[in-house]
Amino acid sequence: MTESIVSLQNPRIKSLVRLRKRRERDQSGRFLIEGYRELRRGVDREVELETLYFCEELFLGSNEPSLIRDARESGAEVIPVGRAAFEKVSYRDRPEGLLAVAHQFKTDLRSLILQENPLLLVVESIEKPGNLGTMLRTADAAGVAAVVVTDPTTDPFNPNVVRASLGCLFTVPLAIAPTNEAINWLRAAGVRTLATTPDTDTMLWESDMTGAVALVVGSEQYGLSSEWLEGADERLRIPMEGEADSLNAAMAAGVALFEAVRQRCV
Amino acid sequence: MTESIVSLQNPRIKSLVRLRKRRERDQSGRFLIEGYRELRRGVDREVELETLYFCEELFLGSNEPSLIRDARESGAEVIPVGRAAFEKVSYRDRPEGLLAVAHQFKTDLRSLILQENPLLLVVESIEKPGNLGTMLRTADAAGVAAVVVTDPTTDPFNPNVVRASLGCLFTVPLAIAPTNEAINWLRAAGVRTLATTPDTDTMLWESDMTGAVALVVGSEQYGLSSEWLEGADERLRIPMEGEADSLNAAMAAGVALFEAVRQRCV
Repeated sequence: MTESIVSLQNPRIKSLVRLRKRRERDQSGRFLIEGYRELRRGVDREVELETLYFCEELFLGSNEPSLIRDARESGAEVIPVGRAAFEKVSYRDRPEGLLAVAHQFKTDLRSLILQENPLLLVVESIEKPGNLGTMLRTADAAGVAAVVVTDPTTDPFNPNVVRASLGCLFTVPLAIAPTNEAINWLRAAGVRTLATTPDTDTMLWESDMTGAVALVVGSEQYGLSSEWLEGADERLRIPMEGEADSLNAAMAAGVALFEAVRQRCV
Repeated sequence: MTESIVSLQNPRIKSLVRLRKRRERDQSGRFLIEGYRELRRGVDREVELETLYFCEELFLGSNEPSLIRDARESGAEVIPVGRAAFEKVSYRDRPEGLLAVAHQFKTDLRSLILQENPLLLVVESIEKPGNLGTMLRTADAAGVAAVVVTDPTTDPFNPNVVRASLGCLFTVPLAIAPTNEAINWLRAAGVRTLATTPDTDTMLWESDMTGAVALVVGSEQYGLSSEWLEGADERLRIPMEGEADSLNAAMAAGVALFEAVRQRCV
């Protein structure tokens, strides 16, 4: 058995902490996956783990050993870590004793394969990792073919995206692209783009979403860019009845996606 | 002009920090409201402010002075605070220079007044303040008549509820009650209760939501209690197409609410 890491000064411990920073992730092409559910989904979807760190003392359930076995079989180095050192590298309040360094996977549009009549979610310039993660989780529940992030400001490999997505970063096909490329790619693929915006009279449910469609949602602060508003095939409004001016961006995506799910079921 | 508070040891500063704790809020009947938007909505809805602390140096916009004037006119004591002291009492990463101590308002079922054919949101035992806040914001956008929280585990006066709600804690009528009382009250008011649960074949949109209805959503971890599942008039399912097992509780509430909005608009 490999020797446990107990020192907080261990260079591996330090490199794990560095991976919380985007610059380090971009330069190394690596990212962090923490937690049982997240790692289970990553391993099941063949996300390439480089190293899996674990601290048995912190395990919450009984499935951890089989996850560790699967990770080792897939080629990951597996290293035990003492509790104090693990608590230092964990970015959670209640660490579950599992944290891996993984290789970032490809997120270019060309790697997406669409079946007939796909439903897609397109999100522009989302700023908060938690929102992007929630969108991925919601997109998974809605059974989308893919999520496309255009002109991203948040890094999809941010640990908080992994966490808020509950690992759906690995279950939902994901592409990242500049807005103009995404518009052209969707058009070429015969996918109708439906932009959500307050500046239209057409209600969300007045559009036919049963074919190949992409629902397009803007950023928390600014909504959709004029490039999207002018480039989309239709503009749709989610009605706002209250005093506050808006839904959270992830909520708007969820409401739009489940209207599409409804139309495609009935 | 009142003298500025600059000392971090000032007893008022200390009492503000204490109000982050539930016990202190429960005992004092007070709570914190921070931020321009939140305070604007509170003042507009006549939430009774006891003291408004401000730090001009941190203001983000130009509307703060009129808010301070309105607060003073409504009877609040207004006290300037130095930057270091303000940053200590703020629970935000980027303080906006406005923080008030307010009186908790009544949240009993009897204080709710329902118009004809109301739409209500009922949430059971929500654990995360951020989720309850998001639900209130979403309920506002959906134009609900009221939100009823049954068997609460999170305190609606938690500062993170105020924040995540963007002040919709003040715009949406709110009641808190034990589950059995809420069931009886809704029944007496002629409101049909529709419980969301994965354990039914009836889809969300298969129920008529155009009359007096309450959508009932369970906690993040456990869903709805058997008391609600058996006590509700109907059970409805939000379809899950993906690999992950569930939507976030606030997302489930939003999807259900906007299906009701759709039915009530078309």
